[in-house]
Amino acid sequence: MKIVIVGGVAGGMSAATRLRRLNEDAEIIVLERGPYVSFANCGLPYYIGGVIKDRSKLLVQTAEKLYDRFRLDVRTESEALKIDRQLQKVTINHQGYLYDERYDKLILSTGAKPMVPPMKGSREADNLYTLRDVPDAERIVRMIEKNRPERAAIIGAGFIGLEMAENLYRRGLKVTVIERAGQVLPPLDIEMAAAVEQELISRDIQVLKGKTVTEFENHGATVIMDDGIKLEADLTILSVGVQPESSLADDAGLELGMRHAIIVNDQLQTSDPNIYAIGDAISIRHFVSGAAAVIPLASPANRQGRMVADILSGMERHYAGTLGTSIVRVFDQAAAVTGLNEKQLRSSGITYETVHTSPYDHATYYPGSKSMQLKLLFESQTGQLLGAQAVGAQGVDKTIDVLSTAIKAKMTVHDLTELELAYAPPFNSAKSPVNLLGYASQNVLEHEVDSIQWSEVDKETHEGSLLIDVRTESEYDQGTIPGAINIPLDNLRERIDELPKHREIIVTCQVGLRGYLAARILSQKGYKVKNLDGGYKLYSTVFPATSKEGV
Amino acid sequence: MKIVIVGGVAGGMSAATRLRRLNEDAEIIVLERGPYVSFANCGLPYYIGGVIKDRSKLLVQTAEKLYDRFRLDVRTESEALKIDRQLQKVTINHQGYLYDERYDKLILSTGAKPMVPPMKGSREADNLYTLRDVPDAERIVRMIEKNRPERAAIIGAGFIGLEMAENLYRRGLKVTVIERAGQVLPPLDIEMAAAVEQELISRDIQVLKGKTVTEFENHGATVIMDDGIKLEADLTILSVGVQPESSLADDAGLELGMRHAIIVNDQLQTSDPNIYAIGDAISIRHFVSGAAAVIPLASPANRQGRMVADILSGMERHYAGTLGTSIVRVFDQAAAVTGLNEKQLRSSGITYETVHTSPYDHATYYPGSKSMQLKLLFESQTGQLLGAQAVGAQGVDKTIDVLSTAIKAKMTVHDLTELELAYAPPFNSAKSPVNLLGYASQNVLEHEVDSIQWSEVDKETHEGSLLIDVRTESEYDQGTIPGAINIPLDNLRERIDELPKHREIIVTCQVGLRGYLAARILSQKGYKVKNLDGGYKLYSTVFPATSKEGV
Ligand SMILES: Cc1cc2nc3c(=O)[nH]c(=O)nc-3n(C[C@H](O)[C@H](O)[C@H](O)COP(=O)(O)OP(=O)(O)OC[C@H]3O[C@@H](n4cnc5c(N)ncnc54)[C@H](O)[C@@H]3O)c2cc1C
Ligand SMILES: Cc1cc2nc3c(=O)[nH]c(=O)nc-3n(C[C@H](O)[C@H](O)[C@H](O)COP(=O)(O)OP(=O)(O)OC[C@H]3O[C@@H](n4cnc5c(N)ncnc54)[C@H](O)[C@@H]3O)c2cc1C
Ligand SMILES: CC(C)(COP(=O)(O)OP(=O)(O)OC[C@H]1O[C@@H](n2cnc3c(N)ncnc32)[C@H](O)[C@@H]1OP(=O)(O)O)[C@@H](O)C(=O)NCCC(=O)NCCS
Ligand SMILES: CC(C)(COP(=O)(O)OP(=O)(O)OC[C@H]1O[C@@H](n2cnc3c(N)ncnc32)[C@H](O)[C@@H]1OP(=O)(O)O)[C@@H](O)C(=O)NCCC(=O)NCCS
Repeated sequence: MKIVIVGGVAGGMSAATRLRRLNEDAEIIVLERGPYVSFANCGLPYYIGGVIKDRSKLLVQTAEKLYDRFRLDVRTESEALKIDRQLQKVTINHQGYLYDERYDKLILSTGAKPMVPPMKGSREADNLYTLRDVPDAERIVRMIEKNRPERAAIIGAGFIGLEMAENLYRRGLKVTVIERAGQVLPPLDIEMAAAVEQELISRDIQVLKGKTVTEFENHGATVIMDDGIKLEADLTILSVGVQPESSLADDAGLELGMRHAIIVNDQLQTSDPNIYAIGDAISIRHFVSGAAAVIPLASPANRQGRMVADILSGMERHYAGTLGTSIVRVFDQAAAVTGLNEKQLRSSGITYETVHTSPYDHATYYPGSKSMQLKLLFESQTGQLLGAQAVGAQGVDKTIDVLSTAIKAKMTVHDLTELELAYAPPFNSAKSPVNLLGYASQNVLEHEVDSIQWSEVDKETHEGSLLIDVRTESEYDQGTIPGAINIPLDNLRERIDELPKHREIIVTCQVGLRGYLAARILSQKGYKVKNLDGGYKLYSTVFPATSKEGV
Repeated sequence: MKIVIVGGVAGGMSAATRLRRLNEDAEIIVLERGPYVSFANCGLPYYIGGVIKDRSKLLVQTAEKLYDRFRLDVRTESEALKIDRQLQKVTINHQGYLYDERYDKLILSTGAKPMVPPMKGSREADNLYTLRDVPDAERIVRMIEKNRPERAAIIGAGFIGLEMAENLYRRGLKVTVIERAGQVLPPLDIEMAAAVEQELISRDIQVLKGKTVTEFENHGATVIMDDGIKLEADLTILSVGVQPESSLADDAGLELGMRHAIIVNDQLQTSDPNIYAIGDAISIRHFVSGAAAVIPLASPANRQGRMVADILSGMERHYAGTLGTSIVRVFDQAAAVTGLNEKQLRSSGITYETVHTSPYDHATYYPGSKSMQLKLLFESQTGQLLGAQAVGAQGVDKTIDVLSTAIKAKMTVHDLTELELAYAPPFNSAKSPVNLLGYASQNVLEHEVDSIQWSEVDKETHEGSLLIDVRTESEYDQGTIPGAINIPLDNLRERIDELPKHREIIVTCQVGLRGYLAARILSQKGYKVKNLDGGYKLYSTVFPATSKEGV
């Protein structure tokens, strides 16, 4: 068997090594356009920031080592120009020399390239960079070392954009992040991203939201936004997302889908049965919604690489879809997401409930615990898990990994209450954050409590609901939601007669726990009551200005 | 409804608070024999070690606060002496004053007490302590501050024993740990516990295994073991396990099971329909084996506490069993386990396979990654997950939590290969440790590789198998398994003809990865080959002496 693989990094090289392990005698050729294979794209921002000091660390494998260990025929600076599907051959350009290579099976793992939206003056800009591979990173490092830029603009506040913001900050630059959406980190929902934005601001990183860069002036030195605002920048990174690199497939007449991604079936096979495709270049099913999705991440790419090798070796495998589990560290905070977010759910037609909690990563009586913000989304009738998000300094990766495993297992909120996670004081609480999230969600699912979201509370109070802040007097004095009246939880039972039975009551506290306790007391006593999910902490993260005013 | 709860800590108080949330008007009485309720037993060793400085931190709740918030009638220094099941009342001793309290439903959460095996001279020993509650911890602290002991003996190397070893070391004592089993941490398998033992030894903690303390002399100053060895100790902690505190239940004629634990059905109901029992005092089903088991841990106790409240409030809940997920930190290492271990599997009759891997907690190109040792146990035919263990400095809690969730979801090794865990360089690798464990296990399950365990290799080489160490020459020179011949993996294909086809070959490397690669090459070329699972690293952890000799 002769297998040709186009693209020699995450997906492609994972396929190649696994193919060799399963087929000692197969002919395996890997074509890579660039000078390096098997490099750690994900480490590039940290290489630029100097966290990863040695460039060689980024090169997980080299063509030579891959030959020595796996007898792989790895050809760098070899671009696949054209596929002849009839004759089953690929035309290759190696430093200007063109030749053909026949294949029995072809695997495309061509990845995705940075999106470059049309912007006036971008061609003339000499300080504008995108980041995909090692040469890109080296260009940026050289520019920094040569020109000593002082002000950087990052266009796009996604994962890569924020990693670049942190790493350029580390290099001593004054950084501004410009994002078209009304929030940083669009894969998260807005209230969860708000905490990340606060972290950026606390490091003196300027965050401009709801602004689109439309133009560059002075060879890129001036960045102009759609509202006319101008920003001076010595170095600009364009990181507004990636698009599947599918022109090779397209030219060969393979079927493309959304965002021009290559369509594959659940065996990773394209519309040509001899051609398979994996990684950032393909469109897959979203594991939760079942809808087509393009999810350019390293874990799916690597796993699809291994799976396609298995399939080509005759094993029975089916790709079940991608959850989109992802994480980013932004200074001292980590932000992570898995499954569908609320924006996606709103447009999906699935009925869902939302619960926010704010647990500590480990027992508070043991030193060093930190609180995180969690969000769970689940189906309204069944409690089936749909998605989760987490932001915090510690425990975020663990929490999201457990939740992503639970989603993959098609668990419900009931199952979360019964998970048995490892507990000793340095690592967890006896009721772990995931159990607590399950408890709070079960209460919503089983109607033990009605909750109201941060985005609804102002409207409902304006429409006549009575807002009660059940925190202590001193907490209340330091700031509350406009219009809130203070009745501390521990006094609620004595003061209950002060409350009107006919009027809807909203209770709020710091994170939602005491509000829940108050709601349970009130609802059992015949009051119409809702608990503000996530409490004042979440509300004041999204609306820092209004809430600080207090009453 | 009037509910009386016996035991006011993890299980009992979790039941009480949840009961109040669900039943604002119920009468809820909590009886606690000791002076405190809701205290953090799990923090006691760290309080003794001075890590938790403030004793009040251990008191998660007090009777007063529980009244203010939950209107709970919490009675400390109130021991339940006797249950009259006919009349549904409990006789209580409050500081010598005896009275009765009627109940509609009674919940027993009486916990477990330290086991004290018969040892000659233990009664006369004035430096011998067990640790269960705050007064116990205070006694030990006072003893240390008053007597300034220099040498401590810890009898029993379980979780609490090792936490005490670390914390007494922190207090400046010279510590010896004595364990009857042939390993520390009996819930782990011996080869996994070996790494923990190394950590102890590296801190100059003396570890005596396979020794039982039978006698004390000189008021405890001399500890005598079954082999006659004597040890001088100024302070001795007895931590050889706990036993269900079930005498109250026993006296009332409730059915007891293994280790005198209270038998409950899957609704946590004892043999008396008006009496429920939870926590360390009960015997439950093991989630994996289905067999009766006594698993005294805080997470199950807390979750059972909430569940029994739900059941008494009319909700449909069933306790699905306990996995025994647990973790302990021993200096810089964490050790964790979930599900069944190999010792339990051997006596269960379940056929199983074992896989050891040694991945890094996050991408090695990003600073600070550390390797851990993982072990997975799965059913031989189906690949169903049965148990997992982990030891390492970082990522142990996350890995075990994901695996415990996967076991709870009844996943197989195939499912592990498809988990989608959050990856960015500081947090994980694109192929996460759990995915890799799934890969290696899938290869065993699907017979891509035959593996052999650390405990079998010496026997098989003695019986004539050829042992090939496929690491580099310099790795080999630093130590290998007795009898191993060196053929570096990258030269194996050229030197393959040196190997005999008729003889069984065992390949070994550092952690099992290169051995696997070698085994794939050899088996496809017609050789009979097995890979040493876990490689030299695991072997030399269990047999530090033999292996250092080299060839
Ligand atoms: C800066 C950066 C940071 C990232 N951080 C993370 C992270 O933290 N977590 C995460 O999950 N993901 C991250 N990613 C995404 C991750 O790197 C990708 O999802 C993954 O590499 C996709 O694998 P792939 O094989 O599909 O494509 P790639 O790894 O991009 O490989 C595709 C290769 O194909 C080559 N190629 C394309 N066309 C041809 C052709 N015609 N002929 C020959 N060669 C061709 C390209 O040169 C390229 O090297 C990051 C990406 C970048 C750029
Ligand atoms: C030092 C130590 C460290 C630990 N570390 C961990 C850890 O890291 N992780 C973990 O998961 N678990 C740990 N545990 C175990 C954990 O604390 C228990 O599993 C948990 O507390 C069990 O809860 P329970 O409600 O069943 O019993 P307990 O919490 O022990 O509560 C039982 C209470 O009942 C009272 N009582 C008993 N009989 C009567 C009576 N007749 N009348 C009135 N009161 C009565 C007792 O005084 C006691 O306070 C540790 C335990 C100890 C002692
Ligand atoms: C590294 C790369 C070449 C793939 O190499 P690989 O050999 O498939 O991957 P690993 O080195 O992790 O080894 C995994 C294999 O070792 C096996 N293995 C791992 N530990 C083992 C152990 N202790 N015992 C036995 N087998 C083990 C696994 O089972 C797996 O083999 P399998 O797929 O045949 O089951 C490819 O992933 C790559 O190019 N990565 C860099 C680029 C990248 O990922 N970029 C995006 C993220 S930055
Ligand atoms: C603390 C203790 C009294 C139990 O109190 P508790 O009120 O049940 O537990 P918590 O304070 O964690 O609160 C959990 C409740 O708050 C709810 N909650 C938590 N965060 C919430 C939020 N943000 N919004 C809404 N509800 C929230 C949960 O749903 C749960 O309520 P439910 O059980 O009715 O669903 C008891 O566990 C105890 O005594 N612990 C100390 C002893 C111990 O555990 N020892 C062993 C380990 S050291």
